[in-house]
Amino acid sequence: MKQVLEQARLAKKASYSMAILPSNVKDKALKDMAKALMDNRSYILKKNQLDVENATTESKSGAFLDRLKLDDERIEQMAQGLMGIQQLPDPIGETVSMWRRPNGLEIGQRRVPLGVIGIIYEARPNVTADATGLCLKTGNAVILRGGSDAIHSNKAIIDVLSEAAYKAGIPQGAFSLIEDTDRKSAEALMQLNGLVDVLIPRGGPGLIKTVIEKSTIPVIETGVGNCHIYVDSDIEKSMANDIVLNAKVQRPGVCNAVETLLIHEKIARNFLPELATALEKHGVEIRGCQKTRDIIECSPANEDDWHTEYLDYVIAIKIVDGIDSAIHHINVYGSGHSEAIITSNYFKAQKFLNEVDAAAVYVNASTRFTDGFEYGFGAEIGISTQKLHTRGPMGLEALTTIKYVINGTGQIRE
Amino acid sequence: MKQVLEQARLAKKASYSMAILPSNVKDKALKDMAKALMDNRSYILKKNQLDVENATTESKSGAFLDRLKLDDERIEQMAQGLMGIQQLPDPIGETVSMWRRPNGLEIGQRRVPLGVIGIIYEARPNVTADATGLCLKTGNAVILRGGSDAIHSNKAIIDVLSEAAYKAGIPQGAFSLIEDTDRKSAEALMQLNGLVDVLIPRGGPGLIKTVIEKSTIPVIETGVGNCHIYVDSDIEKSMANDIVLNAKVQRPGVCNAVETLLIHEKIARNFLPELATALEKHGVEIRGCQKTRDIIECSPANEDDWHTEYLDYVIAIKIVDGIDSAIHHINVYGSGHSEAIITSNYFKAQKFLNEVDAAAVYVNASTRFTDGFEYGFGAEIGISTQKLHTRGPMGLEALTTIKYVINGTGQIRE
Repeated sequence: MKQVLEQARLAKKASYSMAILPSNVKDKALKDMAKALMDNRSYILKKNQLDVENATTESKSGAFLDRLKLDDERIEQMAQGLMGIQQLPDPIGETVSMWRRPNGLEIGQRRVPLGVIGIIYEARPNVTADATGLCLKTGNAVILRGGSDAIHSNKAIIDVLSEAAYKAGIPQGAFSLIEDTDRKSAEALMQLNGLVDVLIPRGGPGLIKTVIEKSTIPVIETGVGNCHIYVDSDIEKSMANDIVLNAKVQRPGVCNAVETLLIHEKIARNFLPELATALEKHGVEIRGCQKTRDIIECSPANEDDWHTEYLDYVIAIKIVDGIDSAIHHINVYGSGHSEAIITSNYFKAQKFLNEVDAAAVYVNASTRFTDGFEYGFGAEIGISTQKLHTRGPMGLEALTTIKYVINGTGQIRE
Repeated sequence: MKQVLEQARLAKKASYSMAILPSNVKDKALKDMAKALMDNRSYILKKNQLDVENATTESKSGAFLDRLKLDDERIEQMAQGLMGIQQLPDPIGETVSMWRRPNGLEIGQRRVPLGVIGIIYEARPNVTADATGLCLKTGNAVILRGGSDAIHSNKAIIDVLSEAAYKAGIPQGAFSLIEDTDRKSAEALMQLNGLVDVLIPRGGPGLIKTVIEKSTIPVIETGVGNCHIYVDSDIEKSMANDIVLNAKVQRPGVCNAVETLLIHEKIARNFLPELATALEKHGVEIRGCQKTRDIIECSPANEDDWHTEYLDYVIAIKIVDGIDSAIHHINVYGSGHSEAIITSNYFKAQKFLNEVDAAAVYVNASTRFTDGFEYGFGAEIGISTQKLHTRGPMGLEALTTIKYVINGTGQIRE
């Protein structure tokens, strides 16, 4: 894995220049990169076709092919993504706070890049462009390790982006793609403590678990979303109905979709039948606890269901005896992503916000809003489900750290 | 390692209650804990005596015994530490920012505890009291794993603290000490991803390396300080002299003491002889590069010296051809802790602040100031040398995270 080490060394070297690049150089590069994507559409599509053919030969699923396949519109979206990042304010160089100590030392906290960011991801070629753009804007060097299924597409995209960026004054080595897609190349990357400052895995639970176990580099855990909605006894029925439906069916394959519904026993008989009809109309399979099955017909939910992120047209339903049981269930089975209560009661709303341990806790709104764009960050590199460094949707700031800058006039410590 | 798992489960359970404890309960507990330490001095000293006797039998070094041994004054310092923490404002519950989205959602970032904090440390019994106090103030449960050399002292301290705290309303299980000091108990703790939210190792490079390699829990890397001072060609000689001396000899055994001095070649012949005399007067051994040895008599410095954190009366000296070489040396050999430039030149000061990659970068001040108390935080749990989550001296905020709290009125995603 000499090649990975060499790429990391070059990235580390480039990171020092990246850290002090003026915003206008970075923004010019982002513009040129967006233009280069558009100008080289046919080249990228030709390379993407190789990946699509391989995936077809290997009889991959339709959903898989859908994520892999590029077309003119998707390339345009990538280019627009880069233009969107270009238009955001540069977070680097901001002095977050500064104060004077009794001995006259001026101590400031200055926002700086993390340094070198490693991103390990699966078969979505658009991540190649998004992650590169976000890392560039925040003055970080980036090492990408995409999946083997998208290797031709990823290589084409990074080649096009690098050429444009290096011409615009970005230091050589600031962007690199690990072309060897063997498992060992990913593991080599995970061991580069000292050269790579942070690793962000983007993909399924298997990938994330491997990274957590093997990495000696600090990791930002992303994405797994076993999300709940608790429907309290005090509700506006139609609002509760709309929110549950939205959180389940508006886009079931994403991490902020709801997976388990908890319903107060006092409202269940009144609320559940209508909701079940609506869910079934949208093709949602219901798996219920015994009390649920006493009210509506559905298949039984077992312990596994409470743990499962379906990412599909399936929902588990459990009837609980009140808010304490609901909060307890969420804190035991939830993945710390997005959790919601539907209630008209002030005290229960406050209690839920206080006691649920998750990145995003909602009162009377759909869990589907956990998203960097919906929060107004203008960008998103993923959704953190860990508590260290960043939690919830990660915008540009999540790719920065601070350093203390101290101006003295000869102070020594007594 | 069933016992460690059981302690972690209890800590996790307690952490939910800890997170919502009112400040006045936490502050009352801190006061009672301080009083309990004072009231139980003779019990703690008796237990400490066992550790000291074992260490003496094992012929441990004087410095080791000094760190281990307690007396009335040291116990009083621990108690005063707890009182100091009690007087700081409670960071938990602060809404860091809150904004309204176009769809009416109110999104707030609220400061909350990390949850369960694991601390692995070596033979300093005072860490037991400090860490417990800091975790309590920030609403975290804590699992302590101290070294075998201090086990009797640690057990006595945690027993005294827990009894007082639990009486004052702190939930059972919020504090725990792993009594088994076998290597395996530490490794078991490092694997508790999902139960323990963050691990903070406090000790030598060997301990920190092990934790980074074995932990599946997010780690905050602390302490290793291979710190530099660069003495530029434009200086006030006496200021440079005072700062270097202070950074080396005021307390050589700590992480923010200077280890390597870089000197501009134009000033070396004028500056070095006088400094060397002063250093030697303080008993400091000098190891110099060839150019240094052309000016003063000293032993030779080799590649190893540039890498070494001496933590002792030793300093390495290298003569460089200017600020770029100095910055390059620091970014290659430094541990990202504390770095200083001595200069009268504005542009060089700015360049050094911008280009050195470290937690704390100083102009015309001693590196010895990198410290939570010196920065005005009123407390310190360690000094982070990593970039994720927290960098430099860690006060109370470093033991917190945020959660998004979102108030809606029925919003669903289009």
